Amino acid sequence: MSDGQNIYDIAKEIFPICRSLSGKGVRQTFEVLKKYADDLNVFEVPTGTEAFDWTVPKEWEINEAYIEDESGKRIIDFKENNLHVMGYSTPVDAWVDLDELLKHVYTQEDQPDAIPYITSYYKERYGFCMSENMKKALKPGRYHMYIDSRLFYGSLSYGEIVIPGETDKEILFTTYVCHPSMADNECSGPATAVYLASYIKGLKKRRYTYRFVFGPETIGSITYISRNLEHLKSHVVAAYNLSCVGDNLDYSIVHSRYGNTFADKTLTNILKFHAPYSDYSFLERGSDERQYNAPGVDIPMVTFCRSKFAKFPEYHTSLDNMDFVSPEGFQGTIDVLYKLVDGLENNAYYKINVLCEPQLGKRGLYPTVSRKGQYDAVMMITSFIAYCDGKNDLFDISNITGIPVDELIEIKDKLIDNKILDVDHE
Amino acid sequence: MSDGQNIYDIAKEIFPICRSLSGKGVRQTFEVLKKYADDLNVFEVPTGTEAFDWTVPKEWEINEAYIEDESGKRIIDFKENNLHVMGYSTPVDAWVDLDELLKHVYTQEDQPDAIPYITSYYKERYGFCMSENMKKALKPGRYHMYIDSRLFYGSLSYGEIVIPGETDKEILFTTYVCHPSMADNECSGPATAVYLASYIKGLKKRRYTYRFVFGPETIGSITYISRNLEHLKSHVVAAYNLSCVGDNLDYSIVHSRYGNTFADKTLTNILKFHAPYSDYSFLERGSDERQYNAPGVDIPMVTFCRSKFAKFPEYHTSLDNMDFVSPEGFQGTIDVLYKLVDGLENNAYYKINVLCEPQLGKRGLYPTVSRKGQYDAVMMITSFIAYCDGKNDLFDISNITGIPVDELIEIKDKLIDNKILDVDHE
Amino acid sequence: MSDGQNIYDIAKEIFPICRSLSGKGVRQTFEVLKKYADDLNVFEVPTGTEAFDWTVPKEWEINEAYIEDESGKRIIDFKENNLHVMGYSTPVDAWVDLDELLKHVYTQEDQPDAIPYITSYYKERYGFCMSENMKKALKPGRYHMYIDSRLFYGSLSYGEIVIPGETDKEILFTTYVCHPSMADNECSGPATAVYLASYIKGLKKRRYTYRFVFGPETIGSITYISRNLEHLKSHVVAAYNLSCVGDNLDYSIVHSRYGNTFADKTLTNILKFHAPYSDYSFLERGSDERQYNAPGVDIPMVTFCRSKFAKFPEYHTSLDNMDFVSPEGFQGTIDVLYKLVDGLENNAYYKINVLCEPQLGKRGLYPTVSRKGQYDAVMMITSFIAYCDGKNDLFDISNITGIPVDELIEIKDKLIDNKILDVDHE
Repeated sequence: MSDGQNIYDIAKEIFPICRSLSGKGVRQTFEVLKKYADDLNVFEVPTGTEAFDWTVPKEWEINEAYIEDESGKRIIDFKENNLHVMGYSTPVDAWVDLDELLKHVYTQEDQPDAIPYITSYYKERYGFCMSENMKKALKPGRYHMYIDSRLFYGSLSYGEIVIPGETDKEILFTTYVCHPSMADNECSGPATAVYLASYIKGLKKRRYTYRFVFGPETIGSITYISRNLEHLKSHVVAAYNLSCVGDNLDYSIVHSRYGNTFADKTLTNILKFHAPYSDYSFLERGSDERQYNAPGVDIPMVTFCRSKFAKFPEYHTSLDNMDFVSPEGFQGTIDVLYKLVDGLENNAYYKINVLCEPQLGKRGLYPTVSRKGQYDAVMMITSFIAYCDGKNDLFDISNITGIPVDELIEIKDKLIDNKILDVDHE
Repeated sequence: MSDGQNIYDIAKEIFPICRSLSGKGVRQTFEVLKKYADDLNVFEVPTGTEAFDWTVPKEWEINEAYIEDESGKRIIDFKENNLHVMGYSTPVDAWVDLDELLKHVYTQEDQPDAIPYITSYYKERYGFCMSENMKKALKPGRYHMYIDSRLFYGSLSYGEIVIPGETDKEILFTTYVCHPSMADNECSGPATAVYLASYIKGLKKRRYTYRFVFGPETIGSITYISRNLEHLKSHVVAAYNLSCVGDNLDYSIVHSRYGNTFADKTLTNILKFHAPYSDYSFLERGSDERQYNAPGVDIPMVTFCRSKFAKFPEYHTSLDNMDFVSPEGFQGTIDVLYKLVDGLENNAYYKINVLCEPQLGKRGLYPTVSRKGQYDAVMMITSFIAYCDGKNDLFDISNITGIPVDELIEIKDKLIDNKILDVDHE
Repeated sequence: MSDGQNIYDIAKEIFPICRSLSGKGVRQTFEVLKKYADDLNVFEVPTGTEAFDWTVPKEWEINEAYIEDESGKRIIDFKENNLHVMGYSTPVDAWVDLDELLKHVYTQEDQPDAIPYITSYYKERYGFCMSENMKKALKPGRYHMYIDSRLFYGSLSYGEIVIPGETDKEILFTTYVCHPSMADNECSGPATAVYLASYIKGLKKRRYTYRFVFGPETIGSITYISRNLEHLKSHVVAAYNLSCVGDNLDYSIVHSRYGNTFADKTLTNILKFHAPYSDYSFLERGSDERQYNAPGVDIPMVTFCRSKFAKFPEYHTSLDNMDFVSPEGFQGTIDVLYKLVDGLENNAYYKINVLCEPQLGKRGLYPTVSRKGQYDAVMMITSFIAYCDGKNDLFDISNITGIPVDELIEIKDKLIDNKILDVDHE
């Protein structure tokens, strides 16, 4: 089976779970992910813990929720779609008129068939979400609003995988476990992350240490950063946030604060040679790049998406389901990530150790009959050599010469074999 | 009455006065301006005073001038339009034939109805200016050329307003008092300058010291600079030359020598968010930015115009009259200048003092229900915060985020009230 | 006669000679060139000498070569066109069938009338070149392949002209003497180089020392660099490689490794104001800029062509003959080089020594009547002065102001005469 299909299947497995900022759903999700990454470590941070300007909120538990009419018919039921309940809803058990009911009903008017995804994390209230069409069909009468939930002093959970390499310089990948049943945003990120971690663990040789962090968005990252700031600042050389990586419609990068970090350079390069892609500045941020790139945190993070969050209509609705993502979409994602990791692992400042162009002919790297129109392969080698002056890493040389990093890796290996290229990992 | 109308009225009051490099007209103009700025200080610099490579020229006085025909009919009369006499004309009283007369007559052939504005400051000669149509209508015959003027050892006058602020760092505004009866160039500049000075004096709090200089173009600025060079170099952080600021056709900036000073950055930013405008490089200079930006002087000056001098057909002719400028034109100008001064006064290097994004919700700056499509106001705040890393001043952040400075000022005030923003005026 | 005609005639004189990497043809070429430059010094480097990663190859001598058919008719004969023999062919004397013959015949299929130029410098083999049409016309039968050549321990020859100047800073020109009977590539380069050298020797005053190097491509340059590296690195401020400079179809520059050297700046500027031209990055290199710009060599070299090598169909075929180049083509080339040398000789960091704009009027450099629309000549002077702040050399000021260097030279001479401009050759 293809990598894309494998990742799709993991995403499908965690899709039904009702996740939120905290609680049972997050922990169930971690249990599934551990099947694919037994070194996934889960941490619990108690409610009330301070994290910079924030405080870890109460834990949310929900068991049952529905609206029923006077005939006892359930209009909506949490069991059918966990988006029907506003995230972090407080409990309710009340019969009300339609007018009163509607004060607690949320819809997405411009997408009348979709159930919107809505939360109220930091103010205690309750609410129900349904499609605009369903709302319009509601008749006057009495309705039973029922939510069996509770907010209590519990904990926030996050997970971490650390894969050691030859150096303690780290490549960081982050993603989310706080979204309920939506596929691209965000079953795709955790599924891709555990799969990529498995690939990296299988590498014969690893120069970098790789760290994967799985947590709830915003408060999860802030909590994680607050507990690991000094370590991250002194070790992470590039960070990539994975979100909405399962659809097959686009490739996107959301840049770091100034768009000039090693993470920007590397992922941009890989995307440029991989497929058409969309380039978003930090002004269009919206995910954990917000926290990692904050002033004083300054971790060089970009976000990698297929279709960027908030740019596709299915985003944050029930339409972001397992049909919206696909094995092909995941395959494109993992191909990019494989190339990225290979580029990173092979990256260095290369320096040719002979003066003037080396004689490629005596090394079998040059045609012995010289005639016009036959030099493309040779030009790739000599162009690479021309910029192996110690000022450029592999991604720089790729950008200068227009040769993809994976092809440069082949050339560089030949030159190293021929002992005419020195390597400085810096 | 609107600010624009008020400034228009001041311009109208000084319009009829016959100004030149020096002399009575300049002093009359200062008398009018003092009605609006009683702290306007007038300085006199004697003829013959050296100013760098230049020497203050003789003072020019003119009482009467006309051309009359044999019947005693005055063809042109200085009393009707002071552009009829070439600036700095020497006296003449002679009857001549048409041929001889025409040697002393200047017209603008491509604008046959306009009287051109012509001067001969640095070579003694006399001349008359008239419309090309009038010149063509002249019949052969005898004409009386009469100019009652004199050039004598007098002085050159310039004026200065200094409005102290909390620091001795200065914002400099300059403009001209050497043009005779032309409205945009240059009754508009002095009228706007005294009005702006009055606004600044009315501010409750002023961080910067503001300096306004009113003088004749070129020799006036050179004289002023020669007497104040060290002070200017050590105090002025941004200088704005005001010229042709009364029409309602365009907005223009003429950049400094390299276009990279604080003056360029600030005025460009304000114009960019105010209205469409024209951007001219220093190669299209023509006003006092020439002197202030000269090598070794290096005062960071840009010129602010509505329509740029020499770019509108009415320029330097009798068509640049009080109909060419308008209250609406002046209103646009003063709006830009108010925004500029407010931007300067509020400018600083801001630094957010919490790590990761602050929790805006608990400060009432964030909606408590999270749903897609509602974040624009929040994004403005968090975008501002993202670049409050101590590297950017307010204008930089505006340029990066695309949010006008006046809106950033509101945000920054809220964050300071919430004690999460530190201010470094540097 | 025009310069262009003179250079054309020199090129025509060396056109018939059979040149290669080494051997008699190269030395005959030097004998001709010495008629125009008696200070041309020829150096011989023995076969087997090491030059960085390379070794000077055996010398090649060829006396006669042909293919004849059974009737004794010569199908091709080296005497008619020296391109008929693959460069560095080993000797052969054999009767073969058509099938066997064709294994040693090279053509250019997409240009059926052209004899291609083909070499096998670094692998010993023999071969014949003919037009595709001629090859198609060959009938089955027996053919006599005959090449009377030898490869032996001899030497590689290169030539050098050094013209001393006031300083030991050097301007380097390089070109090739290894191509057989092709006109643009490369009788044009050596002919132009000796002619330019003669012009430079005739200058009354020379600030720079000028060095001209004539050698075989690649191995010649590598050999030359290996023997002169330290001198070149410490003396050469700009280097220009001349190749394909005799046609009249285009002007081209091939940039240095990063396109940012003094050689790039100067030649780009001259071309920009001379005529439309093509700009090629170092990725489209192909001539000796490859060696001089190699990492660790780092001589600031660009290549100047009319039509760039490998970009015109006649390139490396018998169609690149004396009809492809022209006196007009050479005239354009030498005009560019004259302007370049004059620009270099007059180049300096200029600094105006008065503050504010100088009073041009008292020096006769300004019209005494001031009226609109007459300032272009003055604006050129004051624009030049504005950027004479010690930060820009003549080429920088030309680039900033849009005024060609030759016109700036006239202005700068006037200002120096007026003692208001200081010169820093740095």
